[in-house]
Amino acid sequence: MGQFEDETAIRRNGDGRWATSLSARWNIGENANGGYATAGPLRALLDVTEQPDPLSVTTHFLRPVDVAGPAVIAAELVKRGRVASVARASLEIEGRERLTTIGAFGDLDSDVGADGAVELDPPDVAPPEACVPRAELHQGVDLPILDRLDVVLDPACARAGGSDRAVVTGWVRLADGTEPTTPALTLFADVFPPALYPLMGRVGWMPTIELTVHVRRRPAAGWILARFECDDLDGGRMIETGSLWDSTGTLVARSRQLGLVLTG
Amino acid sequence: MGQFEDETAIRRNGDGRWATSLSARWNIGENANGGYATAGPLRALLDVTEQPDPLSVTTHFLRPVDVAGPAVIAAELVKRGRVASVARASLEIEGRERLTTIGAFGDLDSDVGADGAVELDPPDVAPPEACVPRAELHQGVDLPILDRLDVVLDPACARAGGSDRAVVTGWVRLADGTEPTTPALTLFADVFPPALYPLMGRVGWMPTIELTVHVRRRPAAGWILARFECDDLDGGRMIETGSLWDSTGTLVARSRQLGLVLTG
Repeated sequence: MGQFEDETAIRRNGDGRWATSLSARWNIGENANGGYATAGPLRALLDVTEQPDPLSVTTHFLRPVDVAGPAVIAAELVKRGRVASVARASLEIEGRERLTTIGAFGDLDSDVGADGAVELDPPDVAPPEACVPRAELHQGVDLPILDRLDVVLDPACARAGGSDRAVVTGWVRLADGTEPTTPALTLFADVFPPALYPLMGRVGWMPTIELTVHVRRRPAAGWILARFECDDLDGGRMIETGSLWDSTGTLVARSRQLGLVLTG
Repeated sequence: MGQFEDETAIRRNGDGRWATSLSARWNIGENANGGYATAGPLRALLDVTEQPDPLSVTTHFLRPVDVAGPAVIAAELVKRGRVASVARASLEIEGRERLTTIGAFGDLDSDVGADGAVELDPPDVAPPEACVPRAELHQGVDLPILDRLDVVLDPACARAGGSDRAVVTGWVRLADGTEPTTPALTLFADVFPPALYPLMGRVGWMPTIELTVHVRRRPAAGWILARFECDDLDGGRMIETGSLWDSTGTLVARSRQLGLVLTG
């Protein structure tokens, strides 16, 4: 097992509850990364739905995950379906609910209907070896998670305020060499710097209110290419939309979040 | 009050439950339109959160809403927040849960952080009077809902299989002249023909598994302009992404859904 699987392990306690232990090694500053914090609940959801893949996962981040160590996951099946089963889960630490997630789960290897000449091609991005490690950006926060993940950015978007577009492109992989899985894609959708960074630089705290990840296909081995764009910011609320492709150029996941850009 | 408000009215029964009555006048074939079916639960969510606007609404459609008449809504507050409050609701008819929805609610008139030169401009679309009424499309299903809504399509996307792109653009408004509200935007995000229609024509039943609508700004009076695109179809599962602008060209909502394209 790799670090991601080890450090998101869950133990069923019965009555729809699981025990887990959160590691501080996936932190962004003092808080667990949202994608990492969601990974334990996601495993409980795969368990209750008895499906291999997340198809759609929507998480509301209620309170910071600012405490490492023991946590309780509650999960329940909402509806078992032929093509997709729906279930919801929550993560509780020290008696307070930190996040709630609901998703549809299924088997991405099963063909349930039409195919078509409709696909999203990957953008042009510099190869990983020509990209800038995320650790070299000046984001004003410690990033322990970068010991667990390799995240590199295209040079065109690696400088604070150095671009006229709120677009971040780059690559991500697990640092221990573990190959990507569909649950790992939901993590990868939440580990890049804000798409606003190249346009606006450091703009304050940017908590996510809601993040939805659609996993589209099982990824091939190797780096995952990612593109995120913010094309909609108003009154401190922004929408960031992302897409992930595997090393063969196949689209593997989409994401969209509602986030805040708090300057005060 | 207009038809939309009348026909989505709810009555609080206490204990987190509300009574409502679904009208068949908003049907797509034999089933209630998803956006209409979600409107009653949405009102209960605005009630429990005590907020004026939906910011983000994610609905999982569990079973067809194939029965008009009495229905029961259950809703609960998940977390009250300063900027956004989270709550979830369900719609039950004849003892079966038809949909479950979770969302973040707030006040779109409040400014909570950064603004920026980041906005999405509306596409070029023919004016409403030069567009094709949705009723003139050949979709192979009765559309009672078109007595409640005016939905018109740009001529470029109004012919089945007549385009090389899975893009639908057009306009929508309530047929009784009621002006748009933020809850109505969540309806409007779910009342256009599938974005695959101009590319592939009629392709079978296309149920939505999950739909998320982000409401961005309160709409001005008049028609709402809409654009939907499917750029991702595989194995019968597709992602459709939408944007809505008001009559002044201001972006007012975004949407994304995971849907099925069932040919069998």
